[in-house]
Amino acid sequence: MNEMLLELGQNAKEAENMLRTITTNKKNQVLAAVAEHLVECTDELIKANAVDVENGKKNNMPEGLVDRLLLTPERIQGMAEGLQQLVALEDPIGEVTGMKKRPNGLLIGQKRVPLGVIGIIYEARPNVTADAFGLCFKTGNVVILKGGSDAIHSNEAIVKCIRETLKANDIIENAIQLIQDTSRETAAEFMKMNEYVDVLIPRGGKGLIKAVVNQSTIPVIETGTGNCHIYVDESADLNMAVDIIMNAKTQRVGVCNACESLLVNANIKDVLLPVLANRLKEKHVQMRADKEAMTLMPGAVAATEEDWGTEYLDYILSIKVVYSVDEAIAHINRYNTGHSEAIITNDYTNAQKFLDEVDAAAVYVNASTRFTDGFEFGYGAEIGISTQKLHARGPMGLLALTTTKYIIYGNGQIRQ
Amino acid sequence: MNEMLLELGQNAKEAENMLRTITTNKKNQVLAAVAEHLVECTDELIKANAVDVENGKKNNMPEGLVDRLLLTPERIQGMAEGLQQLVALEDPIGEVTGMKKRPNGLLIGQKRVPLGVIGIIYEARPNVTADAFGLCFKTGNVVILKGGSDAIHSNEAIVKCIRETLKANDIIENAIQLIQDTSRETAAEFMKMNEYVDVLIPRGGKGLIKAVVNQSTIPVIETGTGNCHIYVDESADLNMAVDIIMNAKTQRVGVCNACESLLVNANIKDVLLPVLANRLKEKHVQMRADKEAMTLMPGAVAATEEDWGTEYLDYILSIKVVYSVDEAIAHINRYNTGHSEAIITNDYTNAQKFLDEVDAAAVYVNASTRFTDGFEFGYGAEIGISTQKLHARGPMGLLALTTTKYIIYGNGQIRQ
Repeated sequence: MNEMLLELGQNAKEAENMLRTITTNKKNQVLAAVAEHLVECTDELIKANAVDVENGKKNNMPEGLVDRLLLTPERIQGMAEGLQQLVALEDPIGEVTGMKKRPNGLLIGQKRVPLGVIGIIYEARPNVTADAFGLCFKTGNVVILKGGSDAIHSNEAIVKCIRETLKANDIIENAIQLIQDTSRETAAEFMKMNEYVDVLIPRGGKGLIKAVVNQSTIPVIETGTGNCHIYVDESADLNMAVDIIMNAKTQRVGVCNACESLLVNANIKDVLLPVLANRLKEKHVQMRADKEAMTLMPGAVAATEEDWGTEYLDYILSIKVVYSVDEAIAHINRYNTGHSEAIITNDYTNAQKFLDEVDAAAVYVNASTRFTDGFEFGYGAEIGISTQKLHARGPMGLLALTTTKYIIYGNGQIRQ
Repeated sequence: MNEMLLELGQNAKEAENMLRTITTNKKNQVLAAVAEHLVECTDELIKANAVDVENGKKNNMPEGLVDRLLLTPERIQGMAEGLQQLVALEDPIGEVTGMKKRPNGLLIGQKRVPLGVIGIIYEARPNVTADAFGLCFKTGNVVILKGGSDAIHSNEAIVKCIRETLKANDIIENAIQLIQDTSRETAAEFMKMNEYVDVLIPRGGKGLIKAVVNQSTIPVIETGTGNCHIYVDESADLNMAVDIIMNAKTQRVGVCNACESLLVNANIKDVLLPVLANRLKEKHVQMRADKEAMTLMPGAVAATEEDWGTEYLDYILSIKVVYSVDEAIAHINRYNTGHSEAIITNDYTNAQKFLDEVDAAAVYVNASTRFTDGFEFGYGAEIGISTQKLHARGPMGLLALTTTKYIIYGNGQIRQ
């Protein structure tokens, strides 16, 4: 193995032993101090960031990405506030749940503990650096960061500022480490360090996540894409349906919990679709409809097979007429990405059926899919939204960065 | 992709939709019927198994493996009993935990649901075929089995018998499928079928598990090796210590929760080690000791660095003298495999420290490591013992084969 990575791994293991026993009070004190020091470092951070931004512009980085890369005093303040919010959250570490006495007298319980060493692989968004550190530190985890090469100067400056605070507070600095070699080869090696890293979390676009899933031998927490559907049942309150559809499609289009595809029961299509078409047009949403829907939605274009499986992240909506809740469920289970799905209905049986049979992280009755979010669910923080089924599914709060261990109190028990 | 695998995957997805909504009563009825039919099929199973056994002998399969491969009427009865035991267990599917009202009126709960499609990769142990089916079916999961080539005739016969029962009970037969092509290439392709398989569980030796971890892009539940330690603190009841050590080392040596390494506090080494040496010699346990322990244990040989990290699965024990509970914990955290670790002590502070700081799936005070087991922990079934930290850690019962989905009841909520 690459010697630099080996050293990083060994450093992390050493730090892991220290972070395992740190108290919540100490963690909160450090998080508040890091928040304060980040603001103090504003000039340094902006100076380092300017190098990245200049390089980005030279390399013709698209404007949207340059904007994501850019640090301003307000954004640094935002990073600091994010850390301060973590202070207020309950620390999940150390809780013992469900201790039970076995017939042989053994007392067996499960205790919540840190995962250990977490690797975060992300793109050119320097705010993730502070955010990932805060989430990991609050849960007693060591973090190794691998950011995008385009943000390397910004990330180095942020990590330096965090490590300064750790040192000043007698915390092992290697609680956070940044991989400074941003080459693909090093990233590929990093993803196979099972001996040193317990979990990898990719944060970024589809391509990044897919690359990590395909290359990593370390367990991955996959956050994913959302091809989210709304099905309007024949018993739906149609005003409510229109409001929810408009919210889920247009409140923010570039996010994974936005609605991408609409299924409408044939019995209400004549009433619903023309009204909806007007509302969608007001918001400049392109409609891609099947044959039946197209005749009722002036301005709609024909949907192709590919549309049913596409996450647009844009002002586009695919629309299909279905003849039953069963057809809607079958369509969703075939084309969805396991993120968020909603039924608009006033029928008890259909509501329960939809909740039971749709296979997704979050299934809604009579609400917008846009609520699938760690803050909206009341977790006070969000690691991401898991679309895989192992470990955590749906919005992940601090709990997703923990595991359990069994603790067993005996008095001499041996196995027969 | 291999067309055979593609078809298998599509079949599994279709079956998944049916198994998602099957009632507990129906599942139990089918499990009991499969148990009964397996016994009825005894002659057929033994006939198919004889072909495998004969091939094994021809290919100079080691005797121990031939024995594992062999089916007898008693063993078939045992498989049936295993399925019957599952009938009695509580079905975790469908439980809704912790439903909470959000300030906006949304009612958000988590519902326990099947993982979906589970792939099991195993070696030439035909009993795993029925066992894996039972565990998956009880939890509403579809299973795709990839057994060892040495057991292919036995596995085909068992799967045929199970599918006959499914058909007779109006359950989709593809709830269980066997990959009949046992080549490595097909296995490698199978491990990349993320679109069709939700989780892979390897069941077998170290080599098999490592191969699956290294090759799979599908999330893996890793069950693993156990380099388990016992640390005898200076305050220990030494009779209790000897009894626990002997039990953990010799009650069954070839299992992952057996003790492989002993750490003894220097203050009690003179009293404990000579007595222990005699007891170990009675049981023909080879002692591999560090310098200090060796002088107190006649017959012991010198341990090498390699010994500290070795899971013997044999009548061998490594022994080391340490000077504090901290040294013991540091040694364990360096060399263990995250399975089961025990402290024998009467000191409150050291007991709590050991429970807090040792990083393992199960940490014991004053009990044998041999208890780390799904049945001993009261789960009534065992999928394996997870030594990874994601999803499940320690003995895995039925719960480890489930995930959750968020169900959300609204009345028109849209996001602001």
